[in-house]
Amino acid sequence: MADYKAPLTEMNFVLQELAGMEALSRLPGFEDASPEMVSTILGEVGKLAGDVISPLNAGGDRAGVAIHGEAEVATPEGFRQAYQQFVDGAWGSLQFDPDFGGQGLPFTLSVAVQEMWHSANMSWGLCPLLTQGAVEALSSNASAELKARYLPPMIEGRWTGTMNLTEPQAGSDMSTLRTRAECKGDHYLISGQKIFITWGEHDMTENIVHLVLARLPDAPAGVKGISLFLVPKFLVNEDGSLGERNDCRVVSLEHKIGIHASPTCVMSYGDKGGAVGYLVGEQNRGLDCMFSMMNNARLIVGLQGVAIAERAYQLARDYARERPQGIAPGEKSPGMIIKHPDVRRMLMTMRALTEASRALTYVTCASMDYREKHPDANSRAQHRARAALLTPVVKGWSTEIGQEVASLGVQVHGGMGFIEETGAGQYFRDARILPIYEGTNGIQALDLVARKTLADKGRAMDRLLDEMYDSVTEVRQQDSSLRPAADLVGGAIGALVGAKALLLTMSKDDVYLPGAISFNYLMLMGTVCGAWQMLQAAQIAETRLAEGVGDANFYTAKLVTAHFYIDQILPRHLGYVAMIEAGSHSTMALDEALF
Amino acid sequence: MADYKAPLTEMNFVLQELAGMEALSRLPGFEDASPEMVSTILGEVGKLAGDVISPLNAGGDRAGVAIHGEAEVATPEGFRQAYQQFVDGAWGSLQFDPDFGGQGLPFTLSVAVQEMWHSANMSWGLCPLLTQGAVEALSSNASAELKARYLPPMIEGRWTGTMNLTEPQAGSDMSTLRTRAECKGDHYLISGQKIFITWGEHDMTENIVHLVLARLPDAPAGVKGISLFLVPKFLVNEDGSLGERNDCRVVSLEHKIGIHASPTCVMSYGDKGGAVGYLVGEQNRGLDCMFSMMNNARLIVGLQGVAIAERAYQLARDYARERPQGIAPGEKSPGMIIKHPDVRRMLMTMRALTEASRALTYVTCASMDYREKHPDANSRAQHRARAALLTPVVKGWSTEIGQEVASLGVQVHGGMGFIEETGAGQYFRDARILPIYEGTNGIQALDLVARKTLADKGRAMDRLLDEMYDSVTEVRQQDSSLRPAADLVGGAIGALVGAKALLLTMSKDDVYLPGAISFNYLMLMGTVCGAWQMLQAAQIAETRLAEGVGDANFYTAKLVTAHFYIDQILPRHLGYVAMIEAGSHSTMALDEALF
Repeated sequence: MADYKAPLTEMNFVLQELAGMEALSRLPGFEDASPEMVSTILGEVGKLAGDVISPLNAGGDRAGVAIHGEAEVATPEGFRQAYQQFVDGAWGSLQFDPDFGGQGLPFTLSVAVQEMWHSANMSWGLCPLLTQGAVEALSSNASAELKARYLPPMIEGRWTGTMNLTEPQAGSDMSTLRTRAECKGDHYLISGQKIFITWGEHDMTENIVHLVLARLPDAPAGVKGISLFLVPKFLVNEDGSLGERNDCRVVSLEHKIGIHASPTCVMSYGDKGGAVGYLVGEQNRGLDCMFSMMNNARLIVGLQGVAIAERAYQLARDYARERPQGIAPGEKSPGMIIKHPDVRRMLMTMRALTEASRALTYVTCASMDYREKHPDANSRAQHRARAALLTPVVKGWSTEIGQEVASLGVQVHGGMGFIEETGAGQYFRDARILPIYEGTNGIQALDLVARKTLADKGRAMDRLLDEMYDSVTEVRQQDSSLRPAADLVGGAIGALVGAKALLLTMSKDDVYLPGAISFNYLMLMGTVCGAWQMLQAAQIAETRLAEGVGDANFYTAKLVTAHFYIDQILPRHLGYVAMIEAGSHSTMALDEALF
Repeated sequence: MADYKAPLTEMNFVLQELAGMEALSRLPGFEDASPEMVSTILGEVGKLAGDVISPLNAGGDRAGVAIHGEAEVATPEGFRQAYQQFVDGAWGSLQFDPDFGGQGLPFTLSVAVQEMWHSANMSWGLCPLLTQGAVEALSSNASAELKARYLPPMIEGRWTGTMNLTEPQAGSDMSTLRTRAECKGDHYLISGQKIFITWGEHDMTENIVHLVLARLPDAPAGVKGISLFLVPKFLVNEDGSLGERNDCRVVSLEHKIGIHASPTCVMSYGDKGGAVGYLVGEQNRGLDCMFSMMNNARLIVGLQGVAIAERAYQLARDYARERPQGIAPGEKSPGMIIKHPDVRRMLMTMRALTEASRALTYVTCASMDYREKHPDANSRAQHRARAALLTPVVKGWSTEIGQEVASLGVQVHGGMGFIEETGAGQYFRDARILPIYEGTNGIQALDLVARKTLADKGRAMDRLLDEMYDSVTEVRQQDSSLRPAADLVGGAIGALVGAKALLLTMSKDDVYLPGAISFNYLMLMGTVCGAWQMLQAAQIAETRLAEGVGDANFYTAKLVTAHFYIDQILPRHLGYVAMIEAGSHSTMALDEALF
């Protein structure tokens, strides 16, 4: 199968025209993020992703990972060398603080960069993803001393990071965590077992920095008694050199549906008396510290949905262009399957969903930059609320899309799609984790309805709805071929307004309603937000085509894809709305014993 | 994980109350199929499926199959013994002609029986499925001599059968088949390679009967020059004993996403000069002969969708009842995840889709029995048209459901769902073949719009629509709590009427339209037909509850599930209709080069 080719024109378009990179580059500290610099970075990363990391993807899936010798995990052939090239290019440091060796570029730019790792090789890409999360948690919460000692090698990529939350008895609900931490002067001793630790052990770097949630002896019960600790695989001397091996190790690796090359570890802490750890942030505030990294991680998992969709689309498109089969309608002789309308339906669905979810993801990430860097406090607050509102939508909707598109990719291949050598199957299997980890999509949906909508009485939502209406109005006021499409998008926004009103009103009397409608509400919101983005993209494409500026083929394709989205994807909102309007009754009516 | 438990009450209900087994048992030859006999058979099969065949499913997935020695395929541990129990019980002979050792029972009853094999172990179940198809093709087309020699051991199960259609260059379009057949007096010599041959080689029986499509030297080009041949693994002497090994062998096995224990063979015929084969039916009419078996096979693949959905539901339900996590809305203390509304949404969706697709499948299969056995020629013709119309819907819609429900099954498990040991992953991977084989769902959709709707100007469809309206009217005329639900179903039938009219009208001027809307049209039809069946089921349940007859728990659950279907599944039709109404334009607009 062909290797990944980064869709550079599309990425530059979404960054510049939808996510507003130029405006971002005018924020203090982001001056280097000129369009030229952005394009150069994307081009370089595209090469590394396409030429080096993508070719390792299928082999990594086949080889998997295994524990060797004394709790060592060997990564598949080539992974370590590819990781070294990533470190040499300083690609993991783009968005981080220059005080600790970062490049101080916008998070949004790093998001486009990260999309390419995950398109090329999701298993491999998870390693830097986890490091990034750990860097964020330490940057926001750790003491100056910990930061000085740990951040530079992590930002450099010389050390990697992990998140240790889950225990066998404690999944989404962390109130029942049992891992213990005991104070020993300047450090703590950590004991307990953690599961689902992504890249918890590996041979790509000399050290691994585990962030571990644990309880202090006198901690209150429940989630308010959890603290966050930094537990390095090797202790670190004052001069930054590595000291003794810490009392933590991988016990076993999970056998998974996909991402076979990403070691999912059961980790044991303190088998020999206690792993040395250091408190991050305040005692008993561990969940808050962890959430500060989880918000970004949720966006990046949504991005993984976009990334796997892009990869699946490329493979299916190439196959559809090369596979002869039958005489298509309107043709006189046998041709390639891309000529068949139903194959086009699948490919266009894949394209449209991928582009819409990419746009929404990048735009949401831009709010993450604004919330940090905008000079105006009010703007920062608005972007903070916007990012908080859209994060569960990006995570939930984009990962459902990743799964759907990867499955369509199998289908386009027909019988060959079910054969592993084709490659479509790996994307299908890999994508299946996305709706699950970093908070299942059910958890995202509940976050969206409860914490992000009911909690502020829909205020952040109302601002978003106003902005969406403004986009529609702008198109309607122009002499544009997009007016009928804008009307359809306007109607769908109206339906979302109705669903939000129903949520706010009916939740008062029906305790089950928010949970019962939450998933459909999230999918409704994603579908309508995707249409909003595609309409804006189409408007820009139409303008550029009229001006005769830029890549006419790209803008033509964008316009067609936007029309397809509005004709053939947006109608899904009708079903979601009707399901929401039907309420919680039939969902909750069956007695547990009768299931 | 727990083994499969056959849903016997549900199966008896659907057979008796929806598919009308009692009316079937009044047809000549079906007198033995009394409710008691049906129930007894289901009970016995349920035990074999649950206690013997289901426990082999996970091990079969892990072990897979491999070629040993001289082109021998070893099946996973226990498969052979389980198959022998199946033969000993004569379970493969239920629906076949007593003249050849069959039991002459309704096909519809055999369908309920077959559902249990596929729920228990889809890989294993594929072996008898292929045999059944081969028996049908021979029964309808072979000479008396071939029938006498081959049918009894195949119906007995002592020999198995295969279908050999696909070649590397010829998938759905069989006009380019290259396998050759040369006449040598009373037999033919066959040479060529075939791919995707399910259970093409194995160690469960002493002989395997391959049905192979090939071309005679003077055959016309294209699909009108294909003949069907019977090619036994071991030649068969006049007395029925086995003779020489024939010149056919397995060359390799495919490495697949799922159904790992079902050998998918590349078969080579004639490496040593030609495999001995016998013509089945007339020369150059091979495709017609093959289609006679493919119609039943398509229904049974739809049934596999129901079966895997049932299994996935059982596993997810059991997990949701036993897994503690968090405090659900309206609760005061932590409880099992089944209490969470979003988990209930998933479980109810799984239930409702499984029950609706089971009902539609069984009811369609009843038409297969009527088309053979009804004393009235007009009724036979109507049932023939009905079965032809619904076969692509059962195959396409039920297999999409199999996939969706299996994926929801993974999701209910959260992180554990992605771990192979849980078992949900196997159903998810196994189910992925269903929308592909026996004609991809794209092919089914095209069959539905072109051959089954446009070809008869919608007449068979109109009869179905009338019958569906009658069911709605019946509910509306009663003093039933189901009236609002009936109104919703009536509205959806109206939408289907509109879509059919659009298809008939617009196809005249738009050559792309049938293909472009076909998949959504199939899904629309499945969704509405499912509602029709669930409404009837609910009506019966309501009546039985009022009468105080039968299993009140079962009827209560059926009623709730039907309401859920109509509230939360049927709204999907709104999206399909809007997509159909948007036509083919944006699907076809993008230049091939711009994908």
